[in-house]
Amino acid sequence: MELLQKNKCFDGEQRIYQTTSKSLKQVSKFGVFLPPQALKMQKCPAVIYLAGLTCTEETFVIKAHAQRLAAQLGLILISPDTSPRGDDVEQGDSWDIGQGAGFYLDAIQQPWAEHFQMESYLIKELYPLLMKEFPIAEQKIGIFGHSMGGHGALTLAWKYPEKFSSISAFAPICEPSACPWGEKAFSNYLGVDQTEWAKHDATQLVLNKGALFSEVLIDQGLNDQFYSQLHPENYQAACHKVGQKLTLRMHDGYDHGYFFIQSFIDEHLQFHALQLQK
Amino acid sequence: MELLQKNKCFDGEQRIYQTTSKSLKQVSKFGVFLPPQALKMQKCPAVIYLAGLTCTEETFVIKAHAQRLAAQLGLILISPDTSPRGDDVEQGDSWDIGQGAGFYLDAIQQPWAEHFQMESYLIKELYPLLMKEFPIAEQKIGIFGHSMGGHGALTLAWKYPEKFSSISAFAPICEPSACPWGEKAFSNYLGVDQTEWAKHDATQLVLNKGALFSEVLIDQGLNDQFYSQLHPENYQAACHKVGQKLTLRMHDGYDHGYFFIQSFIDEHLQFHALQLQK
Repeated sequence: MELLQKNKCFDGEQRIYQTTSKSLKQVSKFGVFLPPQALKMQKCPAVIYLAGLTCTEETFVIKAHAQRLAAQLGLILISPDTSPRGDDVEQGDSWDIGQGAGFYLDAIQQPWAEHFQMESYLIKELYPLLMKEFPIAEQKIGIFGHSMGGHGALTLAWKYPEKFSSISAFAPICEPSACPWGEKAFSNYLGVDQTEWAKHDATQLVLNKGALFSEVLIDQGLNDQFYSQLHPENYQAACHKVGQKLTLRMHDGYDHGYFFIQSFIDEHLQFHALQLQK
Repeated sequence: MELLQKNKCFDGEQRIYQTTSKSLKQVSKFGVFLPPQALKMQKCPAVIYLAGLTCTEETFVIKAHAQRLAAQLGLILISPDTSPRGDDVEQGDSWDIGQGAGFYLDAIQQPWAEHFQMESYLIKELYPLLMKEFPIAEQKIGIFGHSMGGHGALTLAWKYPEKFSSISAFAPICEPSACPWGEKAFSNYLGVDQTEWAKHDATQLVLNKGALFSEVLIDQGLNDQFYSQLHPENYQAACHKVGQKLTLRMHDGYDHGYFFIQSFIDEHLQFHALQLQK
């Protein structure tokens, strides 16, 4: 793990690290915000933020405006990159596939399977690395994300409920099996077998595995230019069916971007801090 | 004035506009954050933020994290670009001269004088445009900035004290006549005559014009990689000499960038809101 950058911020430190991943067969970067409490080596809760299509480890760090309240709450913030990258990694034919569009799963189709193993990287490599290197309190890791990263948060939480104690999302892709972004990604990364798709679809996971968390928080803008890709109503119906408590808030006038996220980031951090206190 | 982009943010709107400037002989962009109070056409105070070298109208909008508190305080935020731009505008031989490095003055040397007229653009064109187009309360405009933009704020406030009612800066270039950035800019834009330089040097302006504001707030990081270019002590000495009240706060560990700025932006907005209430 190599420290690439650190900047003092709200008496904490915003850092960027690089690590060599066996799963990705590449180096991969991630951001870590350490609140002042963590710099004093007090054990703190942590939240992992998964970003959306085209984003990097820097997007959340710069655009989400989370550091101020995280410093107050004593929350560690982790922001991984969204995919493997590099000259020998398949580029993809557009911004919604390939580099910048890893969809937080392990690809089983070539040419993607060679490097696109984001699920294994996050769960088997980054998660234990974080626990080893930073003063994170046992069982006190939450996960959240935006758009493709909201899909990532909702699916990884349902696949590994023992690893995450709080979960929320901004404008997540709730049912990738039933939208153009998801169909393109899943057919490329997973192939034509739709039983494979269901393993990585938040709505299907809720229906198949049932209620797993005390509460899920989702914020959604009603002026979201990608609303038709997201299907929050289908996720809500699935949660209702299995008795999973979901707080789905619809916000008039807000769109899909980080001006929306920054407007509600404080409430997500407070939600995670509360859930992780339990 | 053409609206290029608007995004709902904290129940206000972050907008980007473009206007055609006679001074710059170019179109020029600027950001406007309208708090919810301004959207209801209530008269609000406003602050103009001048950014540093290499920045654009978007830098403050994305990186300074000012919208949350501005929405609460009912402050309008204005963020102009830092220079004229375009294919027919002199590019400059590096990042500290030419495009992205306008230094908020009117160049009198060629090839710069043709387009580099940022002082005239800001004062004679943008300022009246803002007063005409947005619900800004009379005499309630403040100015602040960072680095080169801190120089811009400190100098424009001293040149046009009737136009600005509050003033602050982050890590400003306090004495450009006596640092490499300023010497390069001034010799290019103004020529060799140092009496011209003194008209655009914050420390010289304070010495020559005396105390003009009830208080000036400056924050400076002590881990600033450009500290030797900034000379806050010389500005402090000049203020002391003429009886200008200055609150100069030195912050251990903070560097020159936006992680520093976001850490103290709230206190600057509160300072301006208070000064503009008077």
